[in-house]
Amino acid sequence: MDFTVSEKTQTMLDLMNEFIEKEVIPLEQQFLLQGSEGIDKKLFEKQQKVKEMELWAPLHPKDVGGMGLQLMESALVFEVIAKTPLGLTVFGCQAPDAGNIEILHEYATPEQKEEFLLPLVAGKIRSCFSMTEVDLPGSNPVMMDTMAVKDGDDYVINGHKWFTSGADGSAFAILMAVTNPEAEPHKRASMIIVPTNTPGFNLVRNVSVMGHSGKGFGTHAEILYQNCRVPRKNLLGPEGHGFILAQKRLGPGRIHHCMRFIAISKRALDMMCKRAVQRPIAPGQVLADKQIIQGWIAECAADIHAAKLMVLHAAWMIQNVGVKNARKEIAYIKYFVANVMMKVIDRAIQVHGALGMTDDTILSYWYRHERASRIFDGPDEAHKSAVSRQILKNYR
Amino acid sequence: MDFTVSEKTQTMLDLMNEFIEKEVIPLEQQFLLQGSEGIDKKLFEKQQKVKEMELWAPLHPKDVGGMGLQLMESALVFEVIAKTPLGLTVFGCQAPDAGNIEILHEYATPEQKEEFLLPLVAGKIRSCFSMTEVDLPGSNPVMMDTMAVKDGDDYVINGHKWFTSGADGSAFAILMAVTNPEAEPHKRASMIIVPTNTPGFNLVRNVSVMGHSGKGFGTHAEILYQNCRVPRKNLLGPEGHGFILAQKRLGPGRIHHCMRFIAISKRALDMMCKRAVQRPIAPGQVLADKQIIQGWIAECAADIHAAKLMVLHAAWMIQNVGVKNARKEIAYIKYFVANVMMKVIDRAIQVHGALGMTDDTILSYWYRHERASRIFDGPDEAHKSAVSRQILKNYR
Amino acid sequence: MDFTVSEKTQTMLDLMNEFIEKEVIPLEQQFLLQGSEGIDKKLFEKQQKVKEMELWAPLHPKDVGGMGLQLMESALVFEVIAKTPLGLTVFGCQAPDAGNIEILHEYATPEQKEEFLLPLVAGKIRSCFSMTEVDLPGSNPVMMDTMAVKDGDDYVINGHKWFTSGADGSAFAILMAVTNPEAEPHKRASMIIVPTNTPGFNLVRNVSVMGHSGKGFGTHAEILYQNCRVPRKNLLGPEGHGFILAQKRLGPGRIHHCMRFIAISKRALDMMCKRAVQRPIAPGQVLADKQIIQGWIAECAADIHAAKLMVLHAAWMIQNVGVKNARKEIAYIKYFVANVMMKVIDRAIQVHGALGMTDDTILSYWYRHERASRIFDGPDEAHKSAVSRQILKNYR
Amino acid sequence: MDFTVSEKTQTMLDLMNEFIEKEVIPLEQQFLLQGSEGIDKKLFEKQQKVKEMELWAPLHPKDVGGMGLQLMESALVFEVIAKTPLGLTVFGCQAPDAGNIEILHEYATPEQKEEFLLPLVAGKIRSCFSMTEVDLPGSNPVMMDTMAVKDGDDYVINGHKWFTSGADGSAFAILMAVTNPEAEPHKRASMIIVPTNTPGFNLVRNVSVMGHSGKGFGTHAEILYQNCRVPRKNLLGPEGHGFILAQKRLGPGRIHHCMRFIAISKRALDMMCKRAVQRPIAPGQVLADKQIIQGWIAECAADIHAAKLMVLHAAWMIQNVGVKNARKEIAYIKYFVANVMMKVIDRAIQVHGALGMTDDTILSYWYRHERASRIFDGPDEAHKSAVSRQILKNYR
Repeated sequence: MDFTVSEKTQTMLDLMNEFIEKEVIPLEQQFLLQGSEGIDKKLFEKQQKVKEMELWAPLHPKDVGGMGLQLMESALVFEVIAKTPLGLTVFGCQAPDAGNIEILHEYATPEQKEEFLLPLVAGKIRSCFSMTEVDLPGSNPVMMDTMAVKDGDDYVINGHKWFTSGADGSAFAILMAVTNPEAEPHKRASMIIVPTNTPGFNLVRNVSVMGHSGKGFGTHAEILYQNCRVPRKNLLGPEGHGFILAQKRLGPGRIHHCMRFIAISKRALDMMCKRAVQRPIAPGQVLADKQIIQGWIAECAADIHAAKLMVLHAAWMIQNVGVKNARKEIAYIKYFVANVMMKVIDRAIQVHGALGMTDDTILSYWYRHERASRIFDGPDEAHKSAVSRQILKNYR
Repeated sequence: MDFTVSEKTQTMLDLMNEFIEKEVIPLEQQFLLQGSEGIDKKLFEKQQKVKEMELWAPLHPKDVGGMGLQLMESALVFEVIAKTPLGLTVFGCQAPDAGNIEILHEYATPEQKEEFLLPLVAGKIRSCFSMTEVDLPGSNPVMMDTMAVKDGDDYVINGHKWFTSGADGSAFAILMAVTNPEAEPHKRASMIIVPTNTPGFNLVRNVSVMGHSGKGFGTHAEILYQNCRVPRKNLLGPEGHGFILAQKRLGPGRIHHCMRFIAISKRALDMMCKRAVQRPIAPGQVLADKQIIQGWIAECAADIHAAKLMVLHAAWMIQNVGVKNARKEIAYIKYFVANVMMKVIDRAIQVHGALGMTDDTILSYWYRHERASRIFDGPDEAHKSAVSRQILKNYR
Repeated sequence: MDFTVSEKTQTMLDLMNEFIEKEVIPLEQQFLLQGSEGIDKKLFEKQQKVKEMELWAPLHPKDVGGMGLQLMESALVFEVIAKTPLGLTVFGCQAPDAGNIEILHEYATPEQKEEFLLPLVAGKIRSCFSMTEVDLPGSNPVMMDTMAVKDGDDYVINGHKWFTSGADGSAFAILMAVTNPEAEPHKRASMIIVPTNTPGFNLVRNVSVMGHSGKGFGTHAEILYQNCRVPRKNLLGPEGHGFILAQKRLGPGRIHHCMRFIAISKRALDMMCKRAVQRPIAPGQVLADKQIIQGWIAECAADIHAAKLMVLHAAWMIQNVGVKNARKEIAYIKYFVANVMMKVIDRAIQVHGALGMTDDTILSYWYRHERASRIFDGPDEAHKSAVSRQILKNYR
Repeated sequence: MDFTVSEKTQTMLDLMNEFIEKEVIPLEQQFLLQGSEGIDKKLFEKQQKVKEMELWAPLHPKDVGGMGLQLMESALVFEVIAKTPLGLTVFGCQAPDAGNIEILHEYATPEQKEEFLLPLVAGKIRSCFSMTEVDLPGSNPVMMDTMAVKDGDDYVINGHKWFTSGADGSAFAILMAVTNPEAEPHKRASMIIVPTNTPGFNLVRNVSVMGHSGKGFGTHAEILYQNCRVPRKNLLGPEGHGFILAQKRLGPGRIHHCMRFIAISKRALDMMCKRAVQRPIAPGQVLADKQIIQGWIAECAADIHAAKLMVLHAAWMIQNVGVKNARKEIAYIKYFVANVMMKVIDRAIQVHGALGMTDDTILSYWYRHERASRIFDGPDEAHKSAVSRQILKNYR
């Protein structure tokens, strides 16, 4: 066993970290008070700089314009660039584009790549992933109502989705819809590319989430597909393979999500420490002198450290034994890391007192938006049952 | 011992409950999407109805226009009317007006009552309470920088406050400022009534809290007092008695805060149960069939029940032995009840899944705004240390 | 609502408390090192004193020799006398005798009362309750293998029980056995009085529990009923009513169990406080100066206070609306109070450090033996599911 | 980074595991009911077999008769052999001998090695470590009362120790005593070898711990040193270096302790799973079908996995950057891993129901004895404060 990070990787990480600290974090306050639209231009400038530094799209393949890093390296990258919510955009790794790029790279036809993948990696367009349905659990593939019916050379799509994140302003959606209702449950759905300007692709509203309906990539749309007609060549991968593609995407995606949680946790802990040593609570005494605060810092530090080791280990498993044999490890991190993050954020807020409730720090943003981490991609409870099923099958 | 609620009280509670359910909760969705300004008129109409029903200002004294309920009764009232964030406004019990009314009723001069108290109880004007200072712990009375210096018949006030909730649109502030810097720590500050149109009362900004800077009573202002001059007759209570008045106000205020938390908790549990029986997770199975959800419901129900008994007991203590002898019980509920509420809200969100993140339910509003419950009036940790000191003094 | 304890009751409680403090707790150390046999004689002497003081058997009916207290009063008694494991024996309230007395008083025939009930209340004999079966969940009445088959005037009993607490040295067992296998599930079993000297009542072993197989009332026997023949007149209550009787017994029994937990919790907290102020951790500093310890004390105090109010409220419900209508409240306290107790004990041990691991204090005894509180009478999880079912039936 | 375990190491681990499963675990039941004396002979036989297999003393140096494994390997060994409390004895790694061997190997003179170290590694004698004092916190080096005063060629020792584990039957103690009271705090104490047959080495009692005073290596002695005279050549390492030696010992010792906790946790989880699939709770349903149980299994599995990665990482740090630079990582595992273990044991007991309370499984033994894991070597709270100090010094 060896926990060494190569010097080359470390140099890259240091470079990215410096950029995040000096160029990106200073934009945060404006982002918090004005939303993403307030800083659109500035973000674009930062993206150009990142491209010049040849640090653009670290987790995407080289042949489409990314850095082509291995999973364990890109995980370490996320630990650095995700410590501000602006970081992923600046480095060209923003969800759901990142996941879409991964699928497109593996399954898209040459034309699809030309039309959708290349401009996406280049950051010229945005995309969304349209899977979750209102009133139905996304985690259960049998329960999907959206249908794509073949009609001549087209699919005609009808259905009702929501939490299609970032749909507002996207060039296209990767839609999950039932194409083969008679097949066995896991082979009913397919992925289809739906340009958002297709008639019948109706963005009903940007759902108000945690107090805001948002703009652009920070939105979660409700979408009504009404006789939405797209050519059959927009099918992505084989018909009926929607869930299989979704599964494949899941492993590395989980790694990156979880490293993002760790990046957030580490910065929240850092803020907690800074505050603790500065905040007077009595003449000559600061918060850091209090044992409860000390206990929180020590617990958070240990938990984050544990979380990081688990995520890196899961990434190593994926690289070395494949997603299928790493299912348990991939599931562990989902609930373990999200809960660590939420605990760290909560304590960081508590240490900041009233200030923690305000938007003068990033903490309240995370408190609101990262609460979703315990829900999306399946709630903690579903993952725990799944892990347990895997473990218990050795006992039955 | 006897846990009976009188029939008369129960009838009143039922009446209030029906009003809240039928007339107030239906306004919530608009409030969540448009903020309080969107429903100002409607709220005013509801207030008129409440006055007609003679249920206005249940916790304020009869001689100034309230119902004059005893503490234990008004606690039960809060359990009903606080289950929507609009309820307190509709029934004339909104903080910080409620607390200000309490102090004014006990300490204001006849002129002060005429000018400030009566219109406040009637809901014609709003007020705010200006105590918390930027970068100084509100919980420590020694650490206050705002000064009110006597100059002829006036006080000249200089200082920097924030979290002066509801200042925006208020007619006056009750300000806490140091008037006697040489006195012993607890006798340095006084309460002074400062009309908000006084020159030198500068509302710098409505601090953005959990993503919103708000409007009207839903704001938390940063205020710069710059040579702000008010007549000395605006002194409220004896000079140097600021903290003594603040202490007095604390007991009943705590009861009402905590019953509000219980009202929220009960409704969140109710929503959790409704969702659990309706949400399909697999063909023929709903969330309520899962043991973890059952466990959450049972734990939340028990915790809320415990919390309610504690608050009622503390109210009974205040009524029967006085605030001073009930200090331990009053401190218990601060941290116990707030934590129960936050746990219930968190689980209710988890049971609602993605829906819980949205503003299609009230849950995300509470998740954001009630997080402050573990911070304001002193963080949990301060209250725990205080309780412990009280307990341990019997051992030293 | 009124939380007053009558002066008369308080006087009795004070008397009992003084006796426990001065006469019973001093025996504890010997009990811890030598087991109950070491102090049998002394306990007997204390029992005589209690009888002379007319404080014997406070929770049993007057007509059989007890004090005949109401449930809420006897609950308060337990808060006092159960703060040492010897207290219940000294005051004639030891389980399982107490529960058996309750059933016998309500259902026994005059002959049964004469033979079994009176000497039991007087403390001349001991008894046990034989229900739990090896490898079958006690909580599920359908799953019971022990059979009592009618044969002439007798029942012939065959079956395998364990955790028949206190069987060693008992004069008789109240046995739960299936008499009507064809009846509906809840009406299959009956209660039968089985003198322990009946041939075929085979005490296989005193199961070693937490490191000790024990002696006398501190044992948990495994019993093999092999063609054990008792006269049919030993049937207790109507045939097939075994579970109905067991249910009835459950409510008040739960109250007493839970008040015992509270007694333990209060004493553990008291020990924690004593230790905290005495234990030096650095020159001039004791444990009580550390904020984490302060936090524990404050949390434990609040939790115990909440628990006590819940138990008294449940007792009040049983007295005023009956066990059936108090099912939810009775279930709440099972898991709420047991968990409070275990947390308090755990923290008290932590505050005592290495000393807490030893038998120089009572803490390690409780740590070991009260762990059962989350298991017996049904595990926490079963109670939570039951509560949840009750709550959710209003939503379906 | 690379998480591979070498094939050679894995083969050794498999061999050890098979031996533990087939030869050692079967002795457990007798050990639980009769204590270590019941199986002394059998353990000796197993030790001989282990020696024949050349697997004796895996963590001790080759030159004194051990296998000389590196820290990361010996950590993996503990994960296997510590899954039964008998494993360490059988493989010659029992505390406190293991730690004593480590110190003796590094600091003992050739004569000391000849007399004390060699027979200790060979398992011919046992030893103890005498540091903790009654009523003084072991974690604070300033607070030690035991004095070793030079008198001619001797030290004359007076003091009062307890929790000198395994003193009963030991050939010698390594004693920590103040030799230089005027030196700076950390340089006051020295380590001295005290043969237990020295006059003045008075074993007052084997302190009863969790219900048992024990025998042999399972004891915790209270020892009164009364004018106990040993030659000055028994000094171990330089005078005044007692704490420095203790510190050095701490790192690897912590690794082994924590891997032992992981071994216990893994077996407890294994038992939980076995029980869950076998225990019927209703016709056709077993515990494993319940979601709460599934959740526990999944949480325990993730926590144990996290804990193991942390310990291996800490071992890697010690090997690669030294104990001094790994202080934070060494402290993390102390509280993180012990708490994981206690949670897993607690849940395993809960899943076993009444059976979990008995000595028919190993669980209740661990529940009792491993509770000390959160106390010895300094309580969790002390380690958390220490970690926090280390982290915060970068912020001050």
